[in-house]
Amino acid sequence: MYVFIKLVMQVSQIGFIKNLVPQKIGYRNVIYGKQVLALQTIFCTNNYYMADLINEFNDYRHRMNEVILGKNNLVMKRLWNLDTNTYEDGALDKKTKEMLGLVASMVLRCDDCIKYHLGKCFELGINTEALYEVFAVANIVGGTIVIPHTRRAAEYWEALNGARDISVEE
Amino acid sequence: MYVFIKLVMQVSQIGFIKNLVPQKIGYRNVIYGKQVLALQTIFCTNNYYMADLINEFNDYRHRMNEVILGKNNLVMKRLWNLDTNTYEDGALDKKTKEMLGLVASMVLRCDDCIKYHLGKCFELGINTEALYEVFAVANIVGGTIVIPHTRRAAEYWEALNGARDISVEE
Amino acid sequence: MYVFIKLVMQVSQIGFIKNLVPQKIGYRNVIYGKQVLALQTIFCTNNYYMADLINEFNDYRHRMNEVILGKNNLVMKRLWNLDTNTYEDGALDKKTKEMLGLVASMVLRCDDCIKYHLGKCFELGINTEALYEVFAVANIVGGTIVIPHTRRAAEYWEALNGARDISVEE
Amino acid sequence: MYVFIKLVMQVSQIGFIKNLVPQKIGYRNVIYGKQVLALQTIFCTNNYYMADLINEFNDYRHRMNEVILGKNNLVMKRLWNLDTNTYEDGALDKKTKEMLGLVASMVLRCDDCIKYHLGKCFELGINTEALYEVFAVANIVGGTIVIPHTRRAAEYWEALNGARDISVEE
Amino acid sequence: MYVFIKLVMQVSQIGFIKNLVPQKIGYRNVIYGKQVLALQTIFCTNNYYMADLINEFNDYRHRMNEVILGKNNLVMKRLWNLDTNTYEDGALDKKTKEMLGLVASMVLRCDDCIKYHLGKCFELGINTEALYEVFAVANIVGGTIVIPHTRRAAEYWEALNGARDISVEE
Amino acid sequence: MYVFIKLVMQVSQIGFIKNLVPQKIGYRNVIYGKQVLALQTIFCTNNYYMADLINEFNDYRHRMNEVILGKNNLVMKRLWNLDTNTYEDGALDKKTKEMLGLVASMVLRCDDCIKYHLGKCFELGINTEALYEVFAVANIVGGTIVIPHTRRAAEYWEALNGARDISVEE
Repeated sequence: MYVFIKLVMQVSQIGFIKNLVPQKIGYRNVIYGKQVLALQTIFCTNNYYMADLINEFNDYRHRMNEVILGKNNLVMKRLWNLDTNTYEDGALDKKTKEMLGLVASMVLRCDDCIKYHLGKCFELGINTEALYEVFAVANIVGGTIVIPHTRRAAEYWEALNGARDISVEE
Repeated sequence: MYVFIKLVMQVSQIGFIKNLVPQKIGYRNVIYGKQVLALQTIFCTNNYYMADLINEFNDYRHRMNEVILGKNNLVMKRLWNLDTNTYEDGALDKKTKEMLGLVASMVLRCDDCIKYHLGKCFELGINTEALYEVFAVANIVGGTIVIPHTRRAAEYWEALNGARDISVEE
Repeated sequence: MYVFIKLVMQVSQIGFIKNLVPQKIGYRNVIYGKQVLALQTIFCTNNYYMADLINEFNDYRHRMNEVILGKNNLVMKRLWNLDTNTYEDGALDKKTKEMLGLVASMVLRCDDCIKYHLGKCFELGINTEALYEVFAVANIVGGTIVIPHTRRAAEYWEALNGARDISVEE
Repeated sequence: MYVFIKLVMQVSQIGFIKNLVPQKIGYRNVIYGKQVLALQTIFCTNNYYMADLINEFNDYRHRMNEVILGKNNLVMKRLWNLDTNTYEDGALDKKTKEMLGLVASMVLRCDDCIKYHLGKCFELGINTEALYEVFAVANIVGGTIVIPHTRRAAEYWEALNGARDISVEE
Repeated sequence: MYVFIKLVMQVSQIGFIKNLVPQKIGYRNVIYGKQVLALQTIFCTNNYYMADLINEFNDYRHRMNEVILGKNNLVMKRLWNLDTNTYEDGALDKKTKEMLGLVASMVLRCDDCIKYHLGKCFELGINTEALYEVFAVANIVGGTIVIPHTRRAAEYWEALNGARDISVEE
Repeated sequence: MYVFIKLVMQVSQIGFIKNLVPQKIGYRNVIYGKQVLALQTIFCTNNYYMADLINEFNDYRHRMNEVILGKNNLVMKRLWNLDTNTYEDGALDKKTKEMLGLVASMVLRCDDCIKYHLGKCFELGINTEALYEVFAVANIVGGTIVIPHTRRAAEYWEALNGARDISVEE
């Protein structure tokens, strides 16, 4: 560990480890001590974190869906098929339906559902201005308790749009 | 009571009380005994009930909004203004926004909110097929607990579309 | 009005209008003036009210389901079929599944869903003591906001069990 | 029916049926035909409706609590005792606790819970301006879906404060 | 960093760090850069993760309960005692009650509550097929927003049943 | 790994990495293998974790608010301004309003909202006994599903009050 610390110190001084990402997990940064905090700042210059936010979500979703479907509960299987059908083109087009799914997920405050529909909205080419109007409806209807979910939705949307990192100029 | 029933029968026969509506209150019919059930059937021949479903909602909403706004709570006033702005044309058009408001209201299971947005959807010319696709999203996302609210939404939609009464052929 | 009351009094004395029920609708009594309150007391001697609580629910549900299914939205139709399948005998028997449906409906505070599952629990022979243990789980998990729904559930359960009226001795 | 209407008209003219109230049930007026609407207008001149809103709530609550407690489910009984203890004076006074109970009931959108806490707030002397600030917090936190419940809360608060009827001057 | 990776590689090659687990926290993997991703793959060969999912939950729960109970709020203490009593054998047996608690927790989408009841269901010997029928009821009643919670429930159930890792063959 | 542990031991003994904190992320400890568990114990002797719980929350909130407000959606901006106004002194003082916001956030089970209001309650000098009475109302009204959120609230409150670590004596 001593070596590790030492190495990192060196690394941070020379800005060497671009590929490493801060150990940001769940909704917040892993906080290290002062020295490692410096390390984290360096890590944030790389371009892995935001893309990984998407990969992690899809990966976990994929793996656990396999576990669930592997149990052969027919009701679960048929509900999931039905879920897919719901968002197909019909009297309303896919875009509208995905926005409906998104706003419903937001007011029900289901982060993973929000991510799923954000992914679909992105694929279908919905632009950021339109998306934030969906956010606005969700926040007005559902109130300020929707705000924390809007934050995570905004972060995920940045990731989908290729943001490498979200930082605030001081 | 025998006399009462008899009188009504006479009246209905001479087409005099067309304006009377079944005493349908809340979400269901007032159920009388067998004899009065016959009475009710007579009442149902008139065309007031379904329209009244709309009038009652708008009337109560109007009166109570006056009471609330009369108290001059600034937060309440500004929230309500903001609520109106939310559904104006923007990157998304009014139609889409009203459908977003509707689906959000459905999954949150707020009957009065549903009625309000159904009224707006009707004014904006959204057709029944599109509307039922909004219902479908709400039911899939929110589950079978949304069904009772979908029943009341369907009834209100029929009323908006001019239905005089909803009956099922046996 | 005096005449009306008098007529009813006579009628009730001759036991003619047994079928009439007090105009109890929604969650509370229709309140008349003092005289009519007396009238109501007479009405309450008949055995229709509690049964009507059940009939009204089933009637409205039946009629509106017809309206909804008549629109041929496939997602809605398939969801409803799936809903039926969910409560069939499987690894768990119907009784257990209906109690699961009941407790889920209670914590989600869906009165109509509660009534539906209470009807099924009654048909399947679940006794009152067991039922109140389901109520207890719902109230502990969901908190005191479940109490008003428990009141309406208790009333409906009494109706299913043949109660003619619920009154409290002073 | 003609006779009935006529009789009532006579009665109202002689001020005999002061005690009669409009058959307002649930959240909206019972709508009759035109003639009966006139009848209703007459009924509205009496001072029973708003008080009855309170009496009906308390009556139904009282009766159904008796039914539930009569089943001797210990968990239910103890939860209800605990519920009472929760709002006793402590580090926070009763007033504050009842406002906490009220705002919690509002954001959870439980009309009967709201009425219960409004009754307690009224007994404890909380004034209308303070009460509407509780409403404002509930509406901001919980969003516009809280509005319909705020309408019913406002109506009940008027009733508690002795309003005889709520009407809007055109 | 290159050095660091290299060190770990060596360590893994000699099978020395079996005890290390991937830094999977919250609901997803800690994502490192490309090189560290390789590192993670190595870590996944050990058998600690799934068991830790259980230990972490129990540990945090235990520690925080101590903090809360240490404040001596009587309402909290009594509510928790009552919570324990609710699931004791009665007219319904413990198994049924734990399934009731589970389905209620699922439709209310409370991950920690779900884990608690899954633990109890496991102790009481409920099998996987029965458990998935509880999942099915929860998903039908509560809708697709319950799916993400079902994923986490499925993962925890695998952990309880001794799974070492959940992976999907490509 | 042995080497790794050993190094850390040395490091901790020489007080070099005092600033390092256990990699506690999300709601639970990162669990390492047996040896690293020892490592964690060492880390826990430092005083960064609990403070970081607060910093992380504020940091993420600050950054994402900037992202959202940067999109210039007027409804979102105005809702957020309104949110701030809601908690200003009025007929009710700030303390009461923040407790109202807290209890509303608890029954709606919004962890981030809870943290925000806990921070405000702390700034305004609300003491722990009063705070736990707010917790009690939330748990009674909202039921045992509020308990996991109460745990996280209790942890955050300890952090606000300067706790360095929460541990339970065995």
